[in-house]
Amino acid sequence: MKSLDVCLSPELLHLFPIKDRSVVIADILRATSCMVTAFAHGVKAIKPYASLEGCRNSKQPGIFIAGERNGLKVEGFDLGNSPFEYMAPELKGTVIHMTTTNGTQAIEKSAGGSAIFIGSFLNLSALADVLIKENRDVLIVCAGWKGKVNLEDTLFAGALAHLLSSHYNFECDAPLIAEAVYLQAKNDLTEAVSQASHTRRLNRLNIFKDISFCLTPDQYPVVPCLQNGYITLPG
Amino acid sequence: MKSLDVCLSPELLHLFPIKDRSVVIADILRATSCMVTAFAHGVKAIKPYASLEGCRNSKQPGIFIAGERNGLKVEGFDLGNSPFEYMAPELKGTVIHMTTTNGTQAIEKSAGGSAIFIGSFLNLSALADVLIKENRDVLIVCAGWKGKVNLEDTLFAGALAHLLSSHYNFECDAPLIAEAVYLQAKNDLTEAVSQASHTRRLNRLNIFKDISFCLTPDQYPVVPCLQNGYITLPG
Repeated sequence: MKSLDVCLSPELLHLFPIKDRSVVIADILRATSCMVTAFAHGVKAIKPYASLEGCRNSKQPGIFIAGERNGLKVEGFDLGNSPFEYMAPELKGTVIHMTTTNGTQAIEKSAGGSAIFIGSFLNLSALADVLIKENRDVLIVCAGWKGKVNLEDTLFAGALAHLLSSHYNFECDAPLIAEAVYLQAKNDLTEAVSQASHTRRLNRLNIFKDISFCLTPDQYPVVPCLQNGYITLPG
Repeated sequence: MKSLDVCLSPELLHLFPIKDRSVVIADILRATSCMVTAFAHGVKAIKPYASLEGCRNSKQPGIFIAGERNGLKVEGFDLGNSPFEYMAPELKGTVIHMTTTNGTQAIEKSAGGSAIFIGSFLNLSALADVLIKENRDVLIVCAGWKGKVNLEDTLFAGALAHLLSSHYNFECDAPLIAEAVYLQAKNDLTEAVSQASHTRRLNRLNIFKDISFCLTPDQYPVVPCLQNGYITLPG
C-alpha cells in the first residue's frame, strides 16, 4: 500500500521526501481554487510566478496577468484572486501568468515531485481518483499563510486524506491531525472557516461569497497538473 | 484581552514573537511529562541539554543524568524517559541533567520568552491557572518529532487552548486547528494516540502504560519553569 503524508506549511517542506511522489498543492483561499475554476472554464494554461515583479514583467499581448498580495488584487494586473473572475468567457483558450502570496510560492518550492497537482475542494473527488490511478506515494502540501499553518488548507488536506484513507497508509501524524480537524468541522466548513484568521482578514475585503464557494466540494472534474513550468490539464 | 498562539513544530518557531510571552513547552511523549512527574516527586532542579554529549559530560557525583534518543534510554545514563522512573524516592531533593530527542531541543530554541513553563496533561489545569495569573500573551510550543508535527503534542496544545479560550484571543489558526483535534479526540485520547506514528514507534518498545499515563490530565499541581538554565518550581 502506498503512503500519504501532509506538509502543513511550506516551511516544513525540507523534512519531506518529494522525489517519486504525487504532490498536491493546496491554497484554498484562493489561488488553487482560482486555478481549478479557470481550467473548468476553458483556460489553456497557467504559468505560476513566485515573484510579483517576475509576473508583472511577463505581461505580453494575449497573456493575462493575475496578481494577489495579502488578499488584494495587485494594481495594474488583469486579474485578482476571486474564483468568480476566472469564469469569464473571454479567458477561454488563453494563457494566464499568476502570482499569489502563498500558493505560487508553494508550487515553486514543490518542484521535484514526480507530478504536481492543483488541489481544492472544487475538484476534490476528481483529484482523489487521479491520485489512486497514478499509484505513487502522495504528499499534500498546504500553502498556509506566510509560513504559518492555516485552517482552510488543513481542512482540505484532511478531507483528501479522509477520502483516500482506505487506499493509503498515513505516514506520520499530520494526516491524522488534518483528518481530525476535517471530521470536527465537516458539517459546516464555512462556519469553521469563519473563525479563521484568514477569513477575518478577508471578511474586511467583502469576499464571503468567495469563501463559501471555495469550500464547496466537487464542482469541477478537472485536475490541473504542472509540467515544464506550466499548469495545464493533461491529455 | 491577551492573545494565545500555538507553534506546532520548533521548525516554525522563527515565525513567532517570543519576547514578552509566556512560553509553554510540550513534549508529551515523554520529556515534559517526565519533568512534571519528577517535580511532583520532589526533584529539586532539572537542567536541560540539547546535546547528548553535553549532557553525558556533565555527569558529576550527586547529579543524575537522563538521556533519551529515538524513544530509547541512552546507554550509560542513569535515567531514561519513562515518567514512572521519576517517581523514585531516591531522586527527592536531587538535580537531574536531561537530554531528549525533541523536548530539550525545543526548550533551547525557546530561550528568549519572558517565562518558559513545562507543560503536560499531568499539570494541565495548574498550568492554565498560572498562565492566567501571569497575564502575558501565551505561545504553546509543541516539540514535535524531529521537526514534524505530532499528534500528542497537538492534542495537548488543543486541550490547553480549549481551557484558556474564554481568557485569550486565538492569534492565528494553529490554536483553532489544535483545539479541533482535541475536541475530536477528547473522549478517548489514548485510542486517538494509539493511531499516531510515535505510538507505533513506542509500542514496539512496550511503553503503552507510559502513553496512557502521559495523557491523563491533572495528576499534579506543579508548574515547573525555566530560569537561568535550570528548570525548577517557583517560590
